[in-house]
Amino acid sequence: MTSSTTEPIKITSKEQAEWFLNQYDTFLFDCDGVLWLGTHLLPRTKEILNYLTELGKKLIFVTNNSTKSRLTYTKKFASFGINVTEDQIFTSGYASAVYVRDFLKLQPGKDKIWIFGEAGIGEELATMGFESLGGIDTRLDEPFDATTSPFLQNGLDDDVKCVIAGLDTKVNYHRLAITLQYLRKTESVHFVGTNVDSTFPQKGMILPGAGSMVESIATSSGRRPSYCGKPNANMLNTIISAKNLERSKCCMVGDRLNTDMKFGVEGKLGGTLLVLSGIETEERALEINEAYPRPKYYIDTLGDIFDLTH
Amino acid sequence: MTSSTTEPIKITSKEQAEWFLNQYDTFLFDCDGVLWLGTHLLPRTKEILNYLTELGKKLIFVTNNSTKSRLTYTKKFASFGINVTEDQIFTSGYASAVYVRDFLKLQPGKDKIWIFGEAGIGEELATMGFESLGGIDTRLDEPFDATTSPFLQNGLDDDVKCVIAGLDTKVNYHRLAITLQYLRKTESVHFVGTNVDSTFPQKGMILPGAGSMVESIATSSGRRPSYCGKPNANMLNTIISAKNLERSKCCMVGDRLNTDMKFGVEGKLGGTLLVLSGIETEERALEINEAYPRPKYYIDTLGDIFDLTH
Repeated sequence: MTSSTTEPIKITSKEQAEWFLNQYDTFLFDCDGVLWLGTHLLPRTKEILNYLTELGKKLIFVTNNSTKSRLTYTKKFASFGINVTEDQIFTSGYASAVYVRDFLKLQPGKDKIWIFGEAGIGEELATMGFESLGGIDTRLDEPFDATTSPFLQNGLDDDVKCVIAGLDTKVNYHRLAITLQYLRKTESVHFVGTNVDSTFPQKGMILPGAGSMVESIATSSGRRPSYCGKPNANMLNTIISAKNLERSKCCMVGDRLNTDMKFGVEGKLGGTLLVLSGIETEERALEINEAYPRPKYYIDTLGDIFDLTH
Repeated sequence: MTSSTTEPIKITSKEQAEWFLNQYDTFLFDCDGVLWLGTHLLPRTKEILNYLTELGKKLIFVTNNSTKSRLTYTKKFASFGINVTEDQIFTSGYASAVYVRDFLKLQPGKDKIWIFGEAGIGEELATMGFESLGGIDTRLDEPFDATTSPFLQNGLDDDVKCVIAGLDTKVNYHRLAITLQYLRKTESVHFVGTNVDSTFPQKGMILPGAGSMVESIATSSGRRPSYCGKPNANMLNTIISAKNLERSKCCMVGDRLNTDMKFGVEGKLGGTLLVLSGIETEERALEINEAYPRPKYYIDTLGDIFDLTH
């Protein structure tokens, strides 16, 4: 099973922090709950990222948020005064696009993708040369009517070879109905889910996540999607191959046991660090559970590593 | 298992038709696919219903459609020139309301119900004296914003003791998000699903059904609903008790194996008749399958019984 048998170590001293950092040359960070909470940067985030860069570490940012493209993410980092390039960022939308191109072998310029989701997915597909339909097309904001929907007027588009579904806060019956028609059209239309997260935290609330929408589509279509985000191996394989990494020298840093820690442990990365600034508690970090592994290390906040080493 | 072992009998002669009718004093009919297809009445529907009434049979109409109340259904029957009273009609919305009142023992005038669904549910609750929230409230048509939603401004309503979820073609993030807040509030808020159907046919298309929406909410909340419509026993118990029926003298007539036929067989009704005017084929009617039972009888259309006996 995925549960690690050794007791998680809480990093509480300078020596532990330095020993922790020395083991890895690459750190993969989840973003929300680790670096920031929504629009609020967590203390010492900038300082620890700069320090790791000074130490010559490679930094990679891995998020299951498919609503923003990697380019849009660089702007979010920049708004916090953190300079990160697009090639350091991996989103579940980007991982889905890579999966469509490299694993499903769809052809840019020929095959099209139907999107149930927000801007981040279509933008990543476009940079690879794929034409996509659906997604943020405002004609989908209109109430569904089978006789007038512009997406049905001339029949379904035969060039659509895949449906990618993720979080869509503009979910409506029109989007659900047309997505279903593509999945029912033929089994040869692939079904990809950006990420399995059933909820996500926002402003102190727990809101419906990508997984809850993908499961609705899975139920109506009677089909199962291939999921691409954490903890799925598709996401890690994309990163390892793009950045030419040695797994044993990588550490995954995140705030969720069932995605981030599972991702690091099942991906056989050298280490995992759980931060308690997001949704998990110390009690949960130490608890042995069949559903997800325990972290190798844990700490209250990522910034504590900066404080301990300075 | 639910699979019946005897071969389904196709009714093809006057003798068979008369023998079939003589066995039962009550006929329970599914509506769409049996009596009509959408807004198009099937041939001889009026004639066979009149004939059964002349023979002294009790007629009951059982639909998993929760979007219309029983009163609204009487108007649909009237539009086809068929005179049916409200007490002959059982919808999954009505069954859900009965379940809330009689099984969950919620108190009209005191306990409230949050609705994810269309008008039929709230109207049935209102006739029982229950106050409901959500549903067709047009303020839910506005985009979701946690800081401005009128459903969150003064906190959640502590009098809400149950969520009923069903088909809602006005599904949006606002409705999904507030429904989730009530289900997360406390386990003591009950979770009822009107019906499990993942899709339904309309104008030659297969569209997302109640089950696909309820499963989305089940995924985000991590909770399982109690389903009330066919084939669930809640629906049949409501009917049997309201109409004081003897199960062995009842025959279920429907167009779906996995809801109507399962409903009749698991409910231990005397007979089941599958009509092939809806979504099933003769091949499927005869096939032995673990997931649903075979009918006792089948026929191309309900109207054929009239033709055979006249």
